[in-house]
Amino acid sequence: MAYLPKRFLPHQVFAANTDVGKTIFSTALCRGVAARYPNSSIYYLKPVQTGYPVDSDARHAKKYCPSITAADTLYTYKDPVSPHIATVNPPTDVSVLESVRTKIQEYAQESKGKDAFMFLETAGGVNSPIMSGTLQCNFYRPLRLPTVLVADSKLGGISTTLSSFESLYVRGYDVNTVLLFEDESWKNNEFLAKQLPNDIRVFSIPSPPTRGSNNDDFKDMSEYYSRLDKVFQSVAEHLKDKGDKRIEGLMEMENKTKDIIWWPFTQHHNVKNVTVIDSAYGDMMVTLNPKTKDSKGDSNLFTEKFDGCASWWTQGLGHGSPSLSMATAHAAGRYGHVMAPECTNELSLSLAEKLIHTVGKDWAQRVYYSDNGSTATEIALKMALRHTANKHQLSTGTDTNRNIEIIGLKGSYHGDTIGAMDASDPNVYNDTIHWYQPKGFWFDPPNVSMKDGVYNVHIPKEFKYDSAEEKFSSLSGVFGDRSKSKLASFYRSYIDDTLNKLIKQEGRRFGALMMEPILMGAGGMIFVDPLFQKTLVEAARDLKYKDNTEKGIPVILDEVFTGFWRLGRRSAAEILGVKPDIAAYAKLLTGGLVPLAVTLTSEEIFKSFYSPNKHDALLHGHSYTAHPIGCSVALQSIKEYEQKHSSQLTLSSNALNQLSDKDWYIWNPETVQYISHLPNVQGVVSLGTVLAIELKDAEGAGYTSNVSKEFIQHIRNLDNNMQIFARPLGNVVYIMGSIVTTPEQVAQLEKTILNALEHR
Amino acid sequence: MAYLPKRFLPHQVFAANTDVGKTIFSTALCRGVAARYPNSSIYYLKPVQTGYPVDSDARHAKKYCPSITAADTLYTYKDPVSPHIATVNPPTDVSVLESVRTKIQEYAQESKGKDAFMFLETAGGVNSPIMSGTLQCNFYRPLRLPTVLVADSKLGGISTTLSSFESLYVRGYDVNTVLLFEDESWKNNEFLAKQLPNDIRVFSIPSPPTRGSNNDDFKDMSEYYSRLDKVFQSVAEHLKDKGDKRIEGLMEMENKTKDIIWWPFTQHHNVKNVTVIDSAYGDMMVTLNPKTKDSKGDSNLFTEKFDGCASWWTQGLGHGSPSLSMATAHAAGRYGHVMAPECTNELSLSLAEKLIHTVGKDWAQRVYYSDNGSTATEIALKMALRHTANKHQLSTGTDTNRNIEIIGLKGSYHGDTIGAMDASDPNVYNDTIHWYQPKGFWFDPPNVSMKDGVYNVHIPKEFKYDSAEEKFSSLSGVFGDRSKSKLASFYRSYIDDTLNKLIKQEGRRFGALMMEPILMGAGGMIFVDPLFQKTLVEAARDLKYKDNTEKGIPVILDEVFTGFWRLGRRSAAEILGVKPDIAAYAKLLTGGLVPLAVTLTSEEIFKSFYSPNKHDALLHGHSYTAHPIGCSVALQSIKEYEQKHSSQLTLSSNALNQLSDKDWYIWNPETVQYISHLPNVQGVVSLGTVLAIELKDAEGAGYTSNVSKEFIQHIRNLDNNMQIFARPLGNVVYIMGSIVTTPEQVAQLEKTILNALEHR
Repeated sequence: MAYLPKRFLPHQVFAANTDVGKTIFSTALCRGVAARYPNSSIYYLKPVQTGYPVDSDARHAKKYCPSITAADTLYTYKDPVSPHIATVNPPTDVSVLESVRTKIQEYAQESKGKDAFMFLETAGGVNSPIMSGTLQCNFYRPLRLPTVLVADSKLGGISTTLSSFESLYVRGYDVNTVLLFEDESWKNNEFLAKQLPNDIRVFSIPSPPTRGSNNDDFKDMSEYYSRLDKVFQSVAEHLKDKGDKRIEGLMEMENKTKDIIWWPFTQHHNVKNVTVIDSAYGDMMVTLNPKTKDSKGDSNLFTEKFDGCASWWTQGLGHGSPSLSMATAHAAGRYGHVMAPECTNELSLSLAEKLIHTVGKDWAQRVYYSDNGSTATEIALKMALRHTANKHQLSTGTDTNRNIEIIGLKGSYHGDTIGAMDASDPNVYNDTIHWYQPKGFWFDPPNVSMKDGVYNVHIPKEFKYDSAEEKFSSLSGVFGDRSKSKLASFYRSYIDDTLNKLIKQEGRRFGALMMEPILMGAGGMIFVDPLFQKTLVEAARDLKYKDNTEKGIPVILDEVFTGFWRLGRRSAAEILGVKPDIAAYAKLLTGGLVPLAVTLTSEEIFKSFYSPNKHDALLHGHSYTAHPIGCSVALQSIKEYEQKHSSQLTLSSNALNQLSDKDWYIWNPETVQYISHLPNVQGVVSLGTVLAIELKDAEGAGYTSNVSKEFIQHIRNLDNNMQIFARPLGNVVYIMGSIVTTPEQVAQLEKTILNALEHR
Repeated sequence: MAYLPKRFLPHQVFAANTDVGKTIFSTALCRGVAARYPNSSIYYLKPVQTGYPVDSDARHAKKYCPSITAADTLYTYKDPVSPHIATVNPPTDVSVLESVRTKIQEYAQESKGKDAFMFLETAGGVNSPIMSGTLQCNFYRPLRLPTVLVADSKLGGISTTLSSFESLYVRGYDVNTVLLFEDESWKNNEFLAKQLPNDIRVFSIPSPPTRGSNNDDFKDMSEYYSRLDKVFQSVAEHLKDKGDKRIEGLMEMENKTKDIIWWPFTQHHNVKNVTVIDSAYGDMMVTLNPKTKDSKGDSNLFTEKFDGCASWWTQGLGHGSPSLSMATAHAAGRYGHVMAPECTNELSLSLAEKLIHTVGKDWAQRVYYSDNGSTATEIALKMALRHTANKHQLSTGTDTNRNIEIIGLKGSYHGDTIGAMDASDPNVYNDTIHWYQPKGFWFDPPNVSMKDGVYNVHIPKEFKYDSAEEKFSSLSGVFGDRSKSKLASFYRSYIDDTLNKLIKQEGRRFGALMMEPILMGAGGMIFVDPLFQKTLVEAARDLKYKDNTEKGIPVILDEVFTGFWRLGRRSAAEILGVKPDIAAYAKLLTGGLVPLAVTLTSEEIFKSFYSPNKHDALLHGHSYTAHPIGCSVALQSIKEYEQKHSSQLTLSSNALNQLSDKDWYIWNPETVQYISHLPNVQGVVSLGTVLAIELKDAEGAGYTSNVSKEFIQHIRNLDNNMQIFARPLGNVVYIMGSIVTTPEQVAQLEKTILNALEHR
């Protein structure tokens, strides 16, 4: 949604407690602005007023600051109590926030061409509830207006003020000004000025006159306000200065970034625009509007964009979540980071237990922590190769360590460190990298996509199968029991023949089967035929190097992208019906806040490293292994995924073959079908929160394809529609929602996507 | 210092504001315990009392709960104001905390053999200051007592209570109980019971009788307390239950951890004890006392240990810092993680600017973010190899990518991912790792250590230099200008001869010089002769592959361990006087909270990847690249390092040759000298916050040496001394302080170390 012009300076007035003079300070702010910037428009907004009409803060503001442009109240309640008690049938948060936004935009529209100031006065303290019971500081967070905090000047007010400040700060608000009454006994103003961060200015003023018997005391109050005007002119200047500097800072960020940042996976030569992200909430990013630079200042300062690539697939619970912020801070406050090896702490241990009972259920017994998907993958490889070398006695002769390879899938991707790269077939990501040396055999996997409303399993030519495609009318067909099909037995014999040739004829030795289950992300959102993956797992479990000996090599699933409900269930392994020996998780694990990864594995693998000899231990670790902050936020995230998931997708509870397509993903099946019929679309994949569209590319597909560039630019900047921040994967464009994406947002996203597809 | 027996259940009573009934609730808690657990001892402690003797909360508690075992006040002030105003010459925080600890331990001693409860009543609200101005919730944090929060039942009390709860929560306190008065109008109790986390019980009681004209109203109050007893027996049960479950949980952690965690760098077979870390503050970790399991329950529940390995070298500002916790939470609240490439945000950009002006000063122009030391190193390698390949046109022919190597030092260590491993010479860390393939030439570096009070530069035999050692009486001698010395020219010709042979005779090609400046950490705290490193840099800058062409290969400094004041200056490069082309940083970067790493580099290196072709970009990235939480905490950390550093070490400001040994490290020179004379000590290295002692090992040194095991066990468990949690590096034991380690702590550490060295 559109935002506010840069000449419009909005502020939110929060208070440390009720009865600390919020209305007096708001009124004085309006007067200060009127005196200092007489040509500007001044708006006062009280979204929620209780005790009305006896009390009306808007009336007070208008009365004592007649030059105010408008003073409005949106919701009024008669009882002088907290709004959550004053109302029986509270309006929804969505509707209240919409009313507030609409009103602010009316002001912005009205003041066009002029400088304008707005003061939005909240009710009660920062953590007081609004009508629905939602806490105010959470409710107003999407607006994240620059904040004035009215402090408590009474005994105890230092504590309530600092705690209120902290509540705002941990929610990502910028508090730039603190206002309070002077009190000679407590001198809270002096202490607060020293205690609060340096960039916050503290202004204090004398207390107002005591109310007389007449309810109004108009004269006393008018005189009082007049005495304050000088101070509040300074406050107005300070706010204007802060506002100007903020805008100036935002404007400079693009060039500064271009000058000193070196982005991963980015050809800087080709970057035209930098998306300046001011903040984010839910699925939305508040970004600087590139048009802001127009000289008149009437363009909106910000535009909001849907975070359609889920910030590199990390987001599942929305940005700026107060519960996740608190989980982070609690661990920071209790521990910071503490040593992992030979030590334990409540958070790291609890998360390990949780993982073994969720994604590791019924197969994993050990948790190995590291920092990201790449490290989790390298750890998985080191585990598996050693295990296989021991089990099949492959580690004899010289230099054998180097020669044990993996079995994988073409188009796979397991991370960017050299070891993780070596586990993928040569591709555009790794072939320019010095020291990259592929170590494996990669099957070209049959893949699935929808075209013209039908799911096609594409069987590679080199398989020399009877037909190039197998068709299904629904996803339940694709995922259903196909073990007795002709294709199943063909897959098995094709795999066995291939491996036999490699092992027996070429003497190659494989230490693990490693793959991304169901959806290969970075390779281009390739939906691999689940039957093929299941068959590969069976073949790996039956693999023998010599007759009459041990059989089987470990199955590693790289669930870095697919784990934690990305595809609708807590793991893709569960959908696939495969129990791996080792699996790697990251990204969604920490709810999209900080890096943390885990490699889960069975006790059998662990035992391969267990001996009296230190030398046999797995010597791979990172300083921040199992850092409590990551563990804390992961614990909270998994809890929230579990709570929120059931209402989003029914995939969790029902048998796969009983599901309709709508159960498989958050998108509307009609839209997916429609897209699959478009002439410029090669195929569509829709699973869980992911919607991936392969665009036709006359010049041949691939990561370096440019066909999607126009599409991406279009959806990033589409006026009057929900803008989407997305990134292409060659000729594939994908949009990713999250567990918290609402059906209304899905509808808006689909509208934008269709607009872009049909515009081409 | 020793802690409390497990039968002693301490609680801290915090309040959401002043005047919310804290003393009444504390008294009722004592009465509830007395009624429910009549055989237990009950202690009430009011550390700070203002308005005394008119007000005395301890007197009130004793008066209305006569069966209380003791009720004490430690500091009293006459004025009924906040303690920071009541006193002109406030006692130091250290002394006040020591008084509180001493008193609590007196209680614990006195109650030996019995169950005991203690309630420590704070003053004012959670964020009210104590005498020095330190906020209460920060001041009491080292004790981290289980917490009862007295909520505010008045209008506005929801907000003040929730904000107070949040202030406690972000500091790592466990609040298990909330108590408040019932108020029919506001019903804060009902809302809070719903809003607070599920594991917190909310108990509400009727308000006390209004005070009459007589100051005491003894009868009214007595009757009131009697009416409360039933509820507070339940509260007592709840607290006992929580306390018991906490201990039970702590006792189970060791075995649970052994069952499901797989630690890095650890042979599980050899692990006897698990250190259960309950919390940490400053340099101290509060750990479960292994003796806790004794049946009588008189052993202390916890022991405190100095975090002597700085939690794998990550700690620099102390654990549990509220400012770092807040920095973390603010970024989480404002953004969570947001996309890095083609985007920017205030925190990631500000940190990049800060880095370029601190550790990157005068040489770095670009910042590349990643997750840890390994990834930062791999990025550095990928940058350098490509740059050299382009510059010297080495990338011709097939498979040339694989054959460009690095020049390094024997004993170096750059991380655990395969690429980082490949940059180190074969050693105990990597030689069992499948896929490890060393790619370089490593010089055996001359190293420095002190023995018998003299600094010896040990020159390797293979150098065939005139003497095996060069001696210096001070560190300033070692670091001073030695460029004109005989050894300097010998180093240069030795290096040139070696490289010439490798390049011209063997046809090897080197893409970079990579080394840890000054101190090689994981290799065993090897202090490399700075003259040798400087000479190597000069040789690398002069390296040519063909006559009359470009000269020089990039110099990569791995400052993951040494960066950010570990050695007394913000970077080891500064001490060395070398400007690298590329450098990697992690660990201390984020103040010991979360993983984040950076690779800094020059614009020249950046340009090697700049072209219209996407394929030329550096295709290495991680999902959480430049995550705002890490950037926020890094910004705050660097700010605090800069502030705190100047008071700790003078190395930052003075010229190197003007420094006395005391300026070079936080340890006492006399102690370092003394240690260097001990017969079981091979040598000592003391630099910055690091003290490393090489023990004599009859069976030959190395990572697998066991000689230090006894030493480590000794200092971990030494009774009546400061216990130190340390880890060995083969026959080297090291203790690492931080920027916040006090001279008193240093003295205690040295006492423990000497005790252990002389005990052997």
